[in-house]
Amino acid sequence: MVSLQIKKIIEAALAEDIGTGDITTGATVSPKKKGRAQAMAKGDFVIAGLEVFEAVFHAVDKDIRVKKIISDGNKAKKGDIIAEVKGSLSGILQAERVALNLLQRMSGIATLTAKYVETVRKTKAKILDTRKTVPGLRVLDKMAVRIGGGTNHRTGLYDGVLIKDNHIEAAGGITAAVHAQRTRLSHHLKIEVETKNILEVKEALKCRADIIMVDNMTVDAMKKAVDFVAGRALLEASGNVNLGSVAQIAATGVDLISVGELTHSVRAADISLKVKGR
Amino acid sequence: MVSLQIKKIIEAALAEDIGTGDITTGATVSPKKKGRAQAMAKGDFVIAGLEVFEAVFHAVDKDIRVKKIISDGNKAKKGDIIAEVKGSLSGILQAERVALNLLQRMSGIATLTAKYVETVRKTKAKILDTRKTVPGLRVLDKMAVRIGGGTNHRTGLYDGVLIKDNHIEAAGGITAAVHAQRTRLSHHLKIEVETKNILEVKEALKCRADIIMVDNMTVDAMKKAVDFVAGRALLEASGNVNLGSVAQIAATGVDLISVGELTHSVRAADISLKVKGR
Amino acid sequence: MVSLQIKKIIEAALAEDIGTGDITTGATVSPKKKGRAQAMAKGDFVIAGLEVFEAVFHAVDKDIRVKKIISDGNKAKKGDIIAEVKGSLSGILQAERVALNLLQRMSGIATLTAKYVETVRKTKAKILDTRKTVPGLRVLDKMAVRIGGGTNHRTGLYDGVLIKDNHIEAAGGITAAVHAQRTRLSHHLKIEVETKNILEVKEALKCRADIIMVDNMTVDAMKKAVDFVAGRALLEASGNVNLGSVAQIAATGVDLISVGELTHSVRAADISLKVKGR
Amino acid sequence: MVSLQIKKIIEAALAEDIGTGDITTGATVSPKKKGRAQAMAKGDFVIAGLEVFEAVFHAVDKDIRVKKIISDGNKAKKGDIIAEVKGSLSGILQAERVALNLLQRMSGIATLTAKYVETVRKTKAKILDTRKTVPGLRVLDKMAVRIGGGTNHRTGLYDGVLIKDNHIEAAGGITAAVHAQRTRLSHHLKIEVETKNILEVKEALKCRADIIMVDNMTVDAMKKAVDFVAGRALLEASGNVNLGSVAQIAATGVDLISVGELTHSVRAADISLKVKGR
Amino acid sequence: MVSLQIKKIIEAALAEDIGTGDITTGATVSPKKKGRAQAMAKGDFVIAGLEVFEAVFHAVDKDIRVKKIISDGNKAKKGDIIAEVKGSLSGILQAERVALNLLQRMSGIATLTAKYVETVRKTKAKILDTRKTVPGLRVLDKMAVRIGGGTNHRTGLYDGVLIKDNHIEAAGGITAAVHAQRTRLSHHLKIEVETKNILEVKEALKCRADIIMVDNMTVDAMKKAVDFVAGRALLEASGNVNLGSVAQIAATGVDLISVGELTHSVRAADISLKVKGR
Amino acid sequence: MVSLQIKKIIEAALAEDIGTGDITTGATVSPKKKGRAQAMAKGDFVIAGLEVFEAVFHAVDKDIRVKKIISDGNKAKKGDIIAEVKGSLSGILQAERVALNLLQRMSGIATLTAKYVETVRKTKAKILDTRKTVPGLRVLDKMAVRIGGGTNHRTGLYDGVLIKDNHIEAAGGITAAVHAQRTRLSHHLKIEVETKNILEVKEALKCRADIIMVDNMTVDAMKKAVDFVAGRALLEASGNVNLGSVAQIAATGVDLISVGELTHSVRAADISLKVKGR
Repeated sequence: MVSLQIKKIIEAALAEDIGTGDITTGATVSPKKKGRAQAMAKGDFVIAGLEVFEAVFHAVDKDIRVKKIISDGNKAKKGDIIAEVKGSLSGILQAERVALNLLQRMSGIATLTAKYVETVRKTKAKILDTRKTVPGLRVLDKMAVRIGGGTNHRTGLYDGVLIKDNHIEAAGGITAAVHAQRTRLSHHLKIEVETKNILEVKEALKCRADIIMVDNMTVDAMKKAVDFVAGRALLEASGNVNLGSVAQIAATGVDLISVGELTHSVRAADISLKVKGR
Repeated sequence: MVSLQIKKIIEAALAEDIGTGDITTGATVSPKKKGRAQAMAKGDFVIAGLEVFEAVFHAVDKDIRVKKIISDGNKAKKGDIIAEVKGSLSGILQAERVALNLLQRMSGIATLTAKYVETVRKTKAKILDTRKTVPGLRVLDKMAVRIGGGTNHRTGLYDGVLIKDNHIEAAGGITAAVHAQRTRLSHHLKIEVETKNILEVKEALKCRADIIMVDNMTVDAMKKAVDFVAGRALLEASGNVNLGSVAQIAATGVDLISVGELTHSVRAADISLKVKGR
Repeated sequence: MVSLQIKKIIEAALAEDIGTGDITTGATVSPKKKGRAQAMAKGDFVIAGLEVFEAVFHAVDKDIRVKKIISDGNKAKKGDIIAEVKGSLSGILQAERVALNLLQRMSGIATLTAKYVETVRKTKAKILDTRKTVPGLRVLDKMAVRIGGGTNHRTGLYDGVLIKDNHIEAAGGITAAVHAQRTRLSHHLKIEVETKNILEVKEALKCRADIIMVDNMTVDAMKKAVDFVAGRALLEASGNVNLGSVAQIAATGVDLISVGELTHSVRAADISLKVKGR
Repeated sequence: MVSLQIKKIIEAALAEDIGTGDITTGATVSPKKKGRAQAMAKGDFVIAGLEVFEAVFHAVDKDIRVKKIISDGNKAKKGDIIAEVKGSLSGILQAERVALNLLQRMSGIATLTAKYVETVRKTKAKILDTRKTVPGLRVLDKMAVRIGGGTNHRTGLYDGVLIKDNHIEAAGGITAAVHAQRTRLSHHLKIEVETKNILEVKEALKCRADIIMVDNMTVDAMKKAVDFVAGRALLEASGNVNLGSVAQIAATGVDLISVGELTHSVRAADISLKVKGR
Repeated sequence: MVSLQIKKIIEAALAEDIGTGDITTGATVSPKKKGRAQAMAKGDFVIAGLEVFEAVFHAVDKDIRVKKIISDGNKAKKGDIIAEVKGSLSGILQAERVALNLLQRMSGIATLTAKYVETVRKTKAKILDTRKTVPGLRVLDKMAVRIGGGTNHRTGLYDGVLIKDNHIEAAGGITAAVHAQRTRLSHHLKIEVETKNILEVKEALKCRADIIMVDNMTVDAMKKAVDFVAGRALLEASGNVNLGSVAQIAATGVDLISVGELTHSVRAADISLKVKGR
Repeated sequence: MVSLQIKKIIEAALAEDIGTGDITTGATVSPKKKGRAQAMAKGDFVIAGLEVFEAVFHAVDKDIRVKKIISDGNKAKKGDIIAEVKGSLSGILQAERVALNLLQRMSGIATLTAKYVETVRKTKAKILDTRKTVPGLRVLDKMAVRIGGGTNHRTGLYDGVLIKDNHIEAAGGITAAVHAQRTRLSHHLKIEVETKNILEVKEALKCRADIIMVDNMTVDAMKKAVDFVAGRALLEASGNVNLGSVAQIAATGVDLISVGELTHSVRAADISLKVKGR
């Protein structure tokens, strides 16, 4: 069962696609006709978003039934049947595109996340997402990252602290910024500081930042930061991370690696929905 | 000036990101501090979405000024300044991520669209988008396709007719489906029929479909369809279109080529926003 | 089952009428009391909107049952029972006014539409609605026109092209306007041009407008346009159409006749809801 | 300046009409082009809704200026210029239809109301509206009635008490219903009871109803009720009121006459908006 | 069953509390685990809001069952079980805080209201609420007042007339203000005038105000007003009413006493929700 | 300038109060009349919410000016002028109640918070709020706590972890619950565990909880927990905290003390708005 928040996303997506009505289905398919359809993988990927997929059909017609054959987080191979959908054919056809758009995007995110996670499997590094998500879908983008084995960074500006260069400059230096933050911050949240070099790492550690982001540093510089910090804070690598570079970065011993590509450049998983004879 | 509809998308995106407040900026940046920032290209691409980018800053603080240096539809090269933003530093930092997320996605779409358009430049084929857009952002995804030189397919199920295999089967054949559609349809809309082979193309033409989609056909089959139809209907190629295959497809003489990848697998254009000293 | 869009219209209408609560029913009717009511025709008219009527009761209390005795599109005579409603009396009384307001308006529209359609029955002319609908209810107004046997014109500014005098003047003439439109338009949509005389009809036809509106022309001028166009475009008559003039207009051979009165000057069908002993 | 509530109605109406964008204006009119337009009466009627008319243009583009030449509540004659609109031509064309739909409906309501008011001018009877308004527009329908010289009945079920036959039956008689109501009711509200004959009028008066509705009674019966009540309660005539019967009804001496037709069967005032050369 | 309006309040409250998800419950409680919980009184008070309490659980998971053991309006003693909740443990934990926040506030209001009502029990005075409610929750605050035995004043500015000092000054005196009001007012509503001394009371009575508020007067002055008015209008005492003064005020013979404290300074009833072993 | 989120709260509050219109002001105050009003303290308290107060007037009429004389966080004494409001008198009267309701509640919260903060001033304890806020106003309730010198606990279930007894039981013990949480949690968030005795405190510390809540413990037990933990985790006292007990609790050396009363039992600060002659 999806949350109220996700239900609202789905309702808005259906309104966007169906608008004043599906004129093709309205003219050619009787509202009473029943149908059965199969979602099939047309490539190899990690499935994510089946609860959402199901909820789209329910939003159009609560009597449509969705049977999940492969569950979220598992791999589908080309030709695998992922799910079966049964009920009003007219309803199935109206929900189809929105349901697939969401399932394909989420599966695409989970698949790429899983590749990163697999690549750094033997290190302690966790793969993180960023706020570079599609406006309006962040809760789903981040759910997909979790399903792919990744870990979520803060959801938004409201539930995590990340003191970046502009904040540091405005506050008058790292120490001043961290201090200003600490006096106002809820005790539930840690303080993360963005640094560009080992000097800044040292300053951040000195003022007891909980997490230190090493941003756009070389692998050597990151290694030095890891050695210096020696477990006294978490280290997050950020900037220019890709599947080619991530193994090396993880090997430095950083705790966290954030990857914008996970959500800003999603390749949709290829999934079709084929209607079968009843 | 963006439309009311786009303003609502922006407000929702800001609500998603800022939520109960930007706790980092709130602690480190005085509400009275002013700032100046530059959006810079970190790669080569077509710019799209600057009106939207501007409107995000205005939604946070109507006194922030955005100066567009390169306009929508033009190419930026790595290092080019795309726009300058001036005003409340706190407002700029709160709007930054949403503004970039939208500009980067739209520019990514426009850039890929422009590549397709360029590839088929010497043919009569138009490059079309599909309904495989991100739920909630269709109006922006389609705007970006237009800026990239592409043409929009129908917006949703409500403003265009596309009789697909499932509709045909439910209605009892192509002829029956087209007839059912025609008796109900607004005169403003054309009728498009999806076909899988030359026999179906012939039937669609016979019952006077305005547009015939040749779906997942070989280049040879498409060519035959073009020859047979001979301008009596528009032909739209669909299925397995990519930058490698599109030139050959266009060369068959089809009128329209729809490309799901334009919007379902977007690579965000790389753009940074750097705050400068005032 | 009504669409999500119509459900939202109904919820807003109930909120408008019930607000903080029905104070009369709250004081006089036990929430547990059941009731049975009949919707009765108090005149002769075409029924339209029974799905919507039912959905209003469901929105107030999903356990209220509505049995439709006469279906949408059929004629009711004075004294006919149209539908029966059973369930919570308190719920029935709270939903009554909104349910009737919608059913009476939709039936009023369908009834007038049916009169126009009947009047032109022996010609090829179709009766069209316009955008002169009640703000917020367009989807229902247009549904009622269809139920009455009419055909829908475009839904809004977004799903159909109609180049009017102001567009023509701004673009620099009919030919320029049609050209500007064609280069941007989705292939799914036809181009309609408004004309005021035979010269403009000729120009519109020359630049291959799909539909030519002959606006506020005399019957003679329309006849000349029909003869000149000779089936090479659709002709839509518009302006000063009423039940007295429509037969003559249709006799000219135009394809389409649009009638603002269908939705801008609706006479509500007279329907009462009487509660019966259980 | 219109209220927040009316602004929301206008935004929804514009969203309904413009949707994803005005494709005709977008292709033919430069966003920078300015225009000037005149709203002209094409018949004789009472003007109502100019504040709303203006607010529609402002919602599309806050820089459009509307100059009201005839004010709300005054009569326009065929050919009179009602208002002038100046600003972005593209904005004017996008707002035009919604602005006119609202102004025409409101003026239609005010015009009919004014006829009723004029007809009973020499009596003490006030002309009232009912809840038979268009769902979603009640606040505007009722504003138009006031502008036409009428008086508003309760807005909805929440701000006025009207004990009807079904409430009476459920409560076990008029006296019981009035008593149940009185013990719960806010002291700000009066109690109105619907009656069908003189016996019920007597019972309603006996239990101190503030207002007694004489529903569907003959003129003679109403006269008897007026004589009997003799000013001890307000009397409201209801049912089968039309312009033919209203004078006789008013002559009986009733205080209030409610007329469903004012809002359920509106004939839109005929108003055009013509764009002029700058 | 709660109204659509209250359902929307509940959905907004849950969105506020749950946001992107309950991260603690998500990590520690299986979605399939069932639970049983008891709401227990931790003090003595009047229960109010159990329908709302139940609806919160239903909004999170429609399969959760709530059994009400003590009904609204009754007194709970410390240690009493008020209600039992059964169903998905994860759902119960997510709904708990919002359900309690609403139940505790409403019970707090009802409890204080009941104390006032009890204090004036032997007089004819009714205890009224005011518009000093919590923004967004007025419908619930006023429901709680009714459950506690109080009577509702007007809901908002739209459904009751209260001519205060500023209105009087703007209109040019009490008589002018009442006259201006009467010519526009719906016949369903009474006119209330705020007065500060016996002279104003006399003027208000003379122009036939239905209700006269004696605002911030001494008990002696109120007594004089009661004697003077002698039942010809309702008298409402207002200003500086508290549990210490209300008995004396009621003893003057005023009809109504409005108490801001009922809703502006609510002490939440102390209620806990304890999960039990299944 | 208030955030978009707060603007929406204000718009909803105004819609709730004004609804279809302020009928008293509409009848008695000309829309053109200007006015000037002063917000005056009628007791001694800490001011909080002036930005919100101002934004309410702006939402009704953007030309109303609010001059803040005492700023948020400062103390007002009985008789002090807090702010001046100038502009449309009609607008001021319509906004007045909502503006005061919010300002009075926020000032009430800040005042009580400041008392707690002052009471523990010489200890290291911080005063925290809880989720026991008024549904829909949490962002304002928590802002008021900050203005009063308090610190915010988590905003909702989504931005902080608090493992309570029910989670512990469902997960199979404190250690299991903390472990389950840690493997899923964003690195930005700390883990808090609720404990009921020293044994549980020890277990929570052993599995490296960041924060340990000592819930409903005696002062002695709290002191033992402080001694045992010795700075290795933060300690939060919770349960039965009031102005009488808080000094003793703080003296134990706990880091944080959460106080439900701050927001669940608010006493509104007494503030009047008096209109002055211009």
